[in-house]
Amino acid sequence: MGESGEGADFLQLRSASAPAKGLTGWLVEAVRTAIADGRLKDGMRLPATRLLAGDLGISRGVVIEAYRRLAEEGLITARVGAGTVVSALPAPAPRPAPTERRLRPATGVPRLPLPPADALVDTDLSPGVPDLSAFPRAAWLRAEREVLGRATAADLAYGDPRGSRELRQELAGWLGRTRGVRADVDDIIIVNGVAQALALLAQTLRLSGISEIAVEDPGSRGAREGLAHWGLRPVPVPVDEEGMRVTELARTGLRAALLTPAHQFPTGVVLAPRRRRELMEWAGNGALVIEDDYDAEHRYDRAPVPALQASAPEHVAHAGSISKTLAPGMRLGWLIAPRSMQEELIDAKHASDLGCPALPQLVLAHLTAKGDLDRHIRLTRSRYRARRDVFLTSLRRALPTIDVQGVAAGLHLLITFPDLNGAVEDTVLADRVRRAGVLTHPLSWHRVCPGPPGLVVGYASHPAGRLRDAADRIAATVRQVLSADPAVADGASTQAKGPH
Amino acid sequence: MGESGEGADFLQLRSASAPAKGLTGWLVEAVRTAIADGRLKDGMRLPATRLLAGDLGISRGVVIEAYRRLAEEGLITARVGAGTVVSALPAPAPRPAPTERRLRPATGVPRLPLPPADALVDTDLSPGVPDLSAFPRAAWLRAEREVLGRATAADLAYGDPRGSRELRQELAGWLGRTRGVRADVDDIIIVNGVAQALALLAQTLRLSGISEIAVEDPGSRGAREGLAHWGLRPVPVPVDEEGMRVTELARTGLRAALLTPAHQFPTGVVLAPRRRRELMEWAGNGALVIEDDYDAEHRYDRAPVPALQASAPEHVAHAGSISKTLAPGMRLGWLIAPRSMQEELIDAKHASDLGCPALPQLVLAHLTAKGDLDRHIRLTRSRYRARRDVFLTSLRRALPTIDVQGVAAGLHLLITFPDLNGAVEDTVLADRVRRAGVLTHPLSWHRVCPGPPGLVVGYASHPAGRLRDAADRIAATVRQVLSADPAVADGASTQAKGPH
Repeated sequence: MGESGEGADFLQLRSASAPAKGLTGWLVEAVRTAIADGRLKDGMRLPATRLLAGDLGISRGVVIEAYRRLAEEGLITARVGAGTVVSALPAPAPRPAPTERRLRPATGVPRLPLPPADALVDTDLSPGVPDLSAFPRAAWLRAEREVLGRATAADLAYGDPRGSRELRQELAGWLGRTRGVRADVDDIIIVNGVAQALALLAQTLRLSGISEIAVEDPGSRGAREGLAHWGLRPVPVPVDEEGMRVTELARTGLRAALLTPAHQFPTGVVLAPRRRRELMEWAGNGALVIEDDYDAEHRYDRAPVPALQASAPEHVAHAGSISKTLAPGMRLGWLIAPRSMQEELIDAKHASDLGCPALPQLVLAHLTAKGDLDRHIRLTRSRYRARRDVFLTSLRRALPTIDVQGVAAGLHLLITFPDLNGAVEDTVLADRVRRAGVLTHPLSWHRVCPGPPGLVVGYASHPAGRLRDAADRIAATVRQVLSADPAVADGASTQAKGPH
Repeated sequence: MGESGEGADFLQLRSASAPAKGLTGWLVEAVRTAIADGRLKDGMRLPATRLLAGDLGISRGVVIEAYRRLAEEGLITARVGAGTVVSALPAPAPRPAPTERRLRPATGVPRLPLPPADALVDTDLSPGVPDLSAFPRAAWLRAEREVLGRATAADLAYGDPRGSRELRQELAGWLGRTRGVRADVDDIIIVNGVAQALALLAQTLRLSGISEIAVEDPGSRGAREGLAHWGLRPVPVPVDEEGMRVTELARTGLRAALLTPAHQFPTGVVLAPRRRRELMEWAGNGALVIEDDYDAEHRYDRAPVPALQASAPEHVAHAGSISKTLAPGMRLGWLIAPRSMQEELIDAKHASDLGCPALPQLVLAHLTAKGDLDRHIRLTRSRYRARRDVFLTSLRRALPTIDVQGVAAGLHLLITFPDLNGAVEDTVLADRVRRAGVLTHPLSWHRVCPGPPGLVVGYASHPAGRLRDAADRIAATVRQVLSADPAVADGASTQAKGPH
């Protein structure tokens, strides 16, 4: 067993390369590398400590300590009568290449199979992102200073899986005031955004034997894919200009539905009064409505409609976040569920991550209490309204025949093109628009059943000049497509020309 | 249909109670409340706007606007020829009382069925919590200011589900330097603490058909319960003074195992060199080792043993966090898994919460890059060592016959009492100690198979004087139990007296 080592040569070590400090670590690393790359094989004998120390001109104590550490790692073993031998496993096989990740566009609707903003694009009008240049950095930093100054050890320790009591208290008041939500502090679970709220709800519904859920069509593709991941099959129910068609929902026989009543994604419609009533009647018969309070804070022309949850807290699970008011990157939201579901939801939250990070919760509580959150929403709301007006005016001037939905609220709107119906797929149109430098979402990404072509456009994060320019480029592209010989319009497949 | 309303009286409104501002909102709320509490029932007619305005001495426009908002909510409907009638659902049934939450102690091992620190306790020695009074508030705030100053819109938007590239880059270097971990920036997934890493791994293992996993016994009860939540049945494998008995692991025929090699929880032993080798041999045959790098940064008497991951990146999933170095409330950690698992883990992370919050990640990246993290660890390490020495010296002076494990590293140690063997259950002992004001964990909480009584004690978060005092009280309690007539030692059940 074992060839004999021959001092430093054997390890290809040169005393000249020894560092002035950290000699032990250097020697440990050298031996480790020699084992990893196969120069030192299992059973080979290492040079005696005295010999190696002499060769390298270092103290013997350094070598002894290095061997001790290597022994502790299990890489070498001192054997009586046999000196110190390598006891490592064979060098591991080379690692496979890093996983080639499917690209995910950085938008509110992730996991689309689609090129994100690239070199062609100078104006990203993907929906779902607020104006992040307006993020209240100074107020956030002030709040963080305040929070760090008074946070107790308990604030920084493992906490309640529902989240900071301070934040839940503030949100109970704020959501009651701004959204009409009826919740005690103990009814609120702080989550990492609405995506996590849906994940927890899906897990809990699965446990109660539910395996399908009604979703809006068109509707958020991200939400649909998220629910499916957790084993809830999404069943599309059509949305028209009044929101989800509740009579069709009732016909499905399902017991759970996900909706965006305040500002439907992507059509932008607000759920009509009679639909609200029908929906609550449906829910009253033992079903659950998941209310994704999407964009609710941005209502331009009047006070926002209160949350559905207010009228039936035992039939509605209400979820919201600061993704559209402050920033999606904060991953901070809330879930207010019927009390009968709370225990299981809290267990699911606990098993997922034990609870949300403490500091951002305390900062948000402070911003809410001091009115900074309301101030920021007021500020951005008037900014977004002005941007919406600029964009729409430009687009309508250039393309008078378009239909626009969702103007009353939110950060995005839906443009449909009656003239294009049957002439071109909206994926092709969006790709043309992208090549003109403007990124939008084709409506069909967010749709299960076929329908007329459309573009979903987020206008919140760009100044007026850029929006005018983007509207002009969208209009020019549409005119081009309309005037082109259909056979030439590349990508306008036969399928696209068929009736929808 | 419907009785006729009679103006303001009908709504029990008094003009005197009308606020100076926000009249519309006040009126809306009053009607909403009347509907919710059943005073206004479905089909009842509301007073005409002119009548109500006159009664209340407010402008008719206010009443019209209030009715419009109520109609939008679906609570009332204007009917031709019938005026405005209530169209609400019957008042919802009273909500059930808020869920009575099972208390979860605020420690590293949550979900124990056990009273947390209460009025009796003045010194909480629960294991798993660092000295949170030492949290580097000033450095954190400096880093946050820096991060907020230069964060781009992309930093605050929806991001890569693996987390901030900046943080992953820093961690790849830092983990390589301090733990020997071999990882490219793209191998790292940022998670909300090790609890989430285990959740993601459990979900992924389940997808590949694995439904059982070996765990250390004694071992973390929290980890065991977390794995079980996600459908992985934990199978206990004994731990002795060299760590998990790998020959017994091999005998189980399982294909996955969770270990804490750096500082076993709760025994505190470091996985012995030969056990490391055996474990890596076991893993080499197509199994997965999950390495919870618990407490690894706190090694007092020598350089820490490198992570297992370094020797077999394709067979080890390495998880760590800043819970024991900075604070558990930060919920920030990392997962470095074999490349063959990464795609599914990233999907699971994405479906759970889309990714971790941006700002704390950028702050941690900054603290790591600037050396603040290393400085903090050095500072607390010497403090913890001193505290360990104080505590142990006091306890051994008072109780010379105890056995202590886990002194070489970490934030906790395990005390066993050979004299007490068979005399008392450690749950009873821990309860006695608690009544003397000191909170510890009985070893049996963290054990599946029976074994000798012990206490798991965290010493990191208290100053010397308090630790001395706690040691004295523990010792006094143990002596009391020893001297008492076994029949009198309340709670020492017959079961406790049986052989273990």
